[in-house]
Amino acid sequence: MSNQFQRIVLASRPSGEVTANNFRLETVPVPTIMDGQVLIRNHFLSLDPYMRVRMDDAKNYAAPQALNETMIGGTVGEIIASKNPQFQIGDKVIGMMGWAEIGVSDGTLLRKLDTTHIPLSAYLGAVGMPGMTAWYGFTQIMQAKEGETVVVSAASGAVGSVVGQLAKLRGCRAVGIAGGAEKCAYVVNELGFDACVDYKAANQAGNLAEQLAAATPNGIDAIFENVGGASFDACLLRVNPFGRIALCGMISGYDGGDMAIQNARMLLSMRVTLRGFIISEHLDFWPQGLKELGSLVAQGKLKFRESIAPNLATAPEAFIGLLKGKNLGKQLVRLIPE
Amino acid sequence: MSNQFQRIVLASRPSGEVTANNFRLETVPVPTIMDGQVLIRNHFLSLDPYMRVRMDDAKNYAAPQALNETMIGGTVGEIIASKNPQFQIGDKVIGMMGWAEIGVSDGTLLRKLDTTHIPLSAYLGAVGMPGMTAWYGFTQIMQAKEGETVVVSAASGAVGSVVGQLAKLRGCRAVGIAGGAEKCAYVVNELGFDACVDYKAANQAGNLAEQLAAATPNGIDAIFENVGGASFDACLLRVNPFGRIALCGMISGYDGGDMAIQNARMLLSMRVTLRGFIISEHLDFWPQGLKELGSLVAQGKLKFRESIAPNLATAPEAFIGLLKGKNLGKQLVRLIPE
Repeated sequence: MSNQFQRIVLASRPSGEVTANNFRLETVPVPTIMDGQVLIRNHFLSLDPYMRVRMDDAKNYAAPQALNETMIGGTVGEIIASKNPQFQIGDKVIGMMGWAEIGVSDGTLLRKLDTTHIPLSAYLGAVGMPGMTAWYGFTQIMQAKEGETVVVSAASGAVGSVVGQLAKLRGCRAVGIAGGAEKCAYVVNELGFDACVDYKAANQAGNLAEQLAAATPNGIDAIFENVGGASFDACLLRVNPFGRIALCGMISGYDGGDMAIQNARMLLSMRVTLRGFIISEHLDFWPQGLKELGSLVAQGKLKFRESIAPNLATAPEAFIGLLKGKNLGKQLVRLIPE
Repeated sequence: MSNQFQRIVLASRPSGEVTANNFRLETVPVPTIMDGQVLIRNHFLSLDPYMRVRMDDAKNYAAPQALNETMIGGTVGEIIASKNPQFQIGDKVIGMMGWAEIGVSDGTLLRKLDTTHIPLSAYLGAVGMPGMTAWYGFTQIMQAKEGETVVVSAASGAVGSVVGQLAKLRGCRAVGIAGGAEKCAYVVNELGFDACVDYKAANQAGNLAEQLAAATPNGIDAIFENVGGASFDACLLRVNPFGRIALCGMISGYDGGDMAIQNARMLLSMRVTLRGFIISEHLDFWPQGLKELGSLVAQGKLKFRESIAPNLATAPEAFIGLLKGKNLGKQLVRLIPE
């Protein structure tokens, strides 16, 4: 093994859209571990919309990403050196090692993974943070009952794809919103949603409201919102009394765009409960949720796809693509040769 | 007693602001009651912002007010004729007899009142629907703990005044938002709020955010929202993690104005729970809430004021004034000579 590795730091904060110049690829020496520490060779990095929020220096649920520090990020990898009796060389682990090929940890927040029935990368997706985000929002906030209609935006993504499949497993009508015919076909044909509205086509045709109405003939009982903006507002006009909204993201506004809720009147008139949440604050639910998600993936009942960028140098481009909806399924970065 | 009485019907739906022409005063014959019915001489009519919503023909929590029918409204009055063994002549009752001097009821939704310690009109205010709206939103949605900061808009109104006093009784910091120095003085000096922001003065000075920040040095933990619009958006920028919002009204938009939530981003980043509610759907809480409110009013611990229009003919003007914030405290209409 080389005694150097690559990492990506935040070089500057974006003003509006993220650009490749906001990042800087660095080659740095592999640290020497001390007693209690382990060295991890990361195999996959997870790219997630929340990272865009952290790049800003704004009031938020977490401190901003520091400049010139390794970009925050979830990773799965393998222990390659250990001075911590709880971890052996060869152990597969998940942690927050960031946009880097190598990580050092004292074991805190590092979790060993069983890859017998579940592929390592799935722990960054359907059986990881995105899956848990979907599971928590669906079971704890949307609380959708059999026969109810559930709408999820960014339906082909790592989170949305799980929400819709959980809804189908519980006997709901699952309706997705996604950008483009390919994504919608995937959502309906592979993931088994009942319908998917292509918001890009609908916006061009100027018939988003009509398409959504056709897909939700009985209105909408619960919304899992990842995007915000026009499609969220269109959903609000279809919401039934006592609707529930799991507010998970508003990616349409992360680059400085408008995040206003225009049809806020519906929150009142339909007596809606809306709750914003961050899955990392609900760790108490993880054992229960991950058990269910892991079981479903192992049985092939929970499907997922991955978009994998080939190496760390391509991570910025992949991340910018994620923010523009170019990925299908979970966006990962491969950190070891294939 | 005359064999005729006055009522006001909805003559036309408003386009934008309500005008006196949307109403029509009629003189109609007093009906003859049948077995099981009672005749009620109404003493006071309650005027409430929800009536404006019902005047529109829009998707909402209740059917629109029908044209040429008696305007909906809560009333307190006295039984003047009874063919129902549950009610005797002289009984004081509360019901939904509408904008009318006389009402007929089969006793359903009619409730006898004890005016020994509580004045009759208070059952339309602090010990009635507005009080219960405040009580439910405060205890069931805001769930504010001792030491937390609570903000309520339309703080001098029938609902807001109760919210702030309940907050003080529970050891919270209570901050009101109201229009004008007179209202703010009342809110602080008579109702005992810790502070009150005069949004009209603040808007003129262009320092609403600064004034709200000064009044809420520890941020805002819970919001009781009656108004919507700019002051609500200003509150959102001060909201603390896990803030709760009881969304009771958005009166600033009822005449067709903008009801958008501009700072919706805060709902996500601060993991806010927002819930729209209509108190009539939570009847199970009324006995508990009314008991507490009635006890507080009887003991003088819950203060209120009333703005009383002198007769039914002046109800439209009083209602239009209510929508423009001209009243202080509970807006009533007197239906019997003083």
